[in-house]
Amino acid sequence: MPTTSTIPPSDLWKRVQDSLDRQGMMRHLDVRLLRVEKGLVELALPYSDKVTQQQGGFHGGAMGALADIAAGYAGLTVIADDMEVTTVEYKINFLTAFRHGELRATGHVVKAGRRIIVTTAEVRHVDAEGKQNLCAIMQQTLAPVPKTY
Amino acid sequence: MPTTSTIPPSDLWKRVQDSLDRQGMMRHLDVRLLRVEKGLVELALPYSDKVTQQQGGFHGGAMGALADIAAGYAGLTVIADDMEVTTVEYKINFLTAFRHGELRATGHVVKAGRRIIVTTAEVRHVDAEGKQNLCAIMQQTLAPVPKTY
Amino acid sequence: MPTTSTIPPSDLWKRVQDSLDRQGMMRHLDVRLLRVEKGLVELALPYSDKVTQQQGGFHGGAMGALADIAAGYAGLTVIADDMEVTTVEYKINFLTAFRHGELRATGHVVKAGRRIIVTTAEVRHVDAEGKQNLCAIMQQTLAPVPKTY
Amino acid sequence: MPTTSTIPPSDLWKRVQDSLDRQGMMRHLDVRLLRVEKGLVELALPYSDKVTQQQGGFHGGAMGALADIAAGYAGLTVIADDMEVTTVEYKINFLTAFRHGELRATGHVVKAGRRIIVTTAEVRHVDAEGKQNLCAIMQQTLAPVPKTY
Repeated sequence: MPTTSTIPPSDLWKRVQDSLDRQGMMRHLDVRLLRVEKGLVELALPYSDKVTQQQGGFHGGAMGALADIAAGYAGLTVIADDMEVTTVEYKINFLTAFRHGELRATGHVVKAGRRIIVTTAEVRHVDAEGKQNLCAIMQQTLAPVPKTY
Repeated sequence: MPTTSTIPPSDLWKRVQDSLDRQGMMRHLDVRLLRVEKGLVELALPYSDKVTQQQGGFHGGAMGALADIAAGYAGLTVIADDMEVTTVEYKINFLTAFRHGELRATGHVVKAGRRIIVTTAEVRHVDAEGKQNLCAIMQQTLAPVPKTY
Repeated sequence: MPTTSTIPPSDLWKRVQDSLDRQGMMRHLDVRLLRVEKGLVELALPYSDKVTQQQGGFHGGAMGALADIAAGYAGLTVIADDMEVTTVEYKINFLTAFRHGELRATGHVVKAGRRIIVTTAEVRHVDAEGKQNLCAIMQQTLAPVPKTY
Repeated sequence: MPTTSTIPPSDLWKRVQDSLDRQGMMRHLDVRLLRVEKGLVELALPYSDKVTQQQGGFHGGAMGALADIAAGYAGLTVIADDMEVTTVEYKINFLTAFRHGELRATGHVVKAGRRIIVTTAEVRHVDAEGKQNLCAIMQQTLAPVPKTY
């Protein structure tokens, strides 16, 4: 097990938000933080022409980026304060394409080892009426690395 | 084997460029088409604050999106003219993070079946002096679907 | 959605067991069927020197094969009676190595489409005292194909 | 970069063969070592009813195990003598099923880092006349760990 975070639960949100604010790509896509718990992070990505593919649906690249980040930040909530995580790899299955509304990705830590953290994420689409549909699932490998900034 | 494309090689470029032009996300990230052959497509993505992660390097989400698209379009070059491809899933390993310069992703068709196309892609970073470094490799599953637009 | 199975729940067990009996590799490894429900199958694999790696633990190849089969059979429980499934691809993360006891893999259908079925599986180790530990997780893509025997 | 192996090339074969001999599963399946170079290992697996699926073809589990081992041993050829590798995860796509003859898997190191080694493998089928067909491709993540035996 890694030296786990000593950050009080109330400060985990700040830890994730601070890192998210530094990500040009996520700011650019208007990604918002919805939920932070130890081992779990949820993010939202609104529909816009910045995230569409050739048929006008959410781009797989946007779903992949959102899932990657949600699960990566879930990993960040379980490691020591002077560390951050880097994505070793992920694998994502796309289930259905959707337009409009927003995407919500929830990342979960499955196992936090000292050198490797394994996570999963699911991406759901939420339409204007609040109806939710699963649109992608991801399985990911993270590595804790020293924080350099 | 699928009914293969009857598009002359000289028109494959147009086929891919037309689809790329329809992708809001790729337009938005200034992705350019570099090479199109039967079974191979290469794309470039320039560095900007639209594609950075928290340390200022290219975001994994940007590398994943670029690799996904390069390999998807490689698939598009080997299928019938009234079809397009949808990404079933992909898996990407990140090797090194880079800043500045640009990313180039090359997608290759490994096997084109009637219902499933398997591809790979590699993503290289190219710096201001033209020095290239491999930064990610991807393995992907596509499905041919009827073109609906 | 695929034309779903019209087999009564009570016959799903027979459908899976019949296919399992035809698998030389699974017979050889003494794999047993533990549970069959619509969209879920659980299998067990006992420890023996037929499934060890160089340190005497269960071989990753054995965990991978068991997870592949459990999730594949979960897929078999949701398709039409004259069809079977073929594995398009899978991705597996290994969490911890164990010796002795047995492995149990549980496969779940996440989404059953007409051409693609997406599943997950988890592999747990069970020791002599019945203590369970998660040792691998898998994400898989299946394709329904006509049954030819 | 990891502290690389100081074993002379002529001894790399012995290093891999010694580890292979310790794997009950590989002995049991009559897996043979065909080629060992720095960063590359090739293995063969003969057809038998120990490795078949329900249609009499090579089992995906056997292809996955062989690819996993070939790429894992490719990783073993590039690390320090007192280390071995453990598989963090792999992802495999199955292209075609074959009967009889034998499978040959070739593993390659793509990048050897200090904490993570990324590899790929391809699995080919070879029939009685020596005709070869690609039947699976794999992408894998390894971690070097201290050798404990």
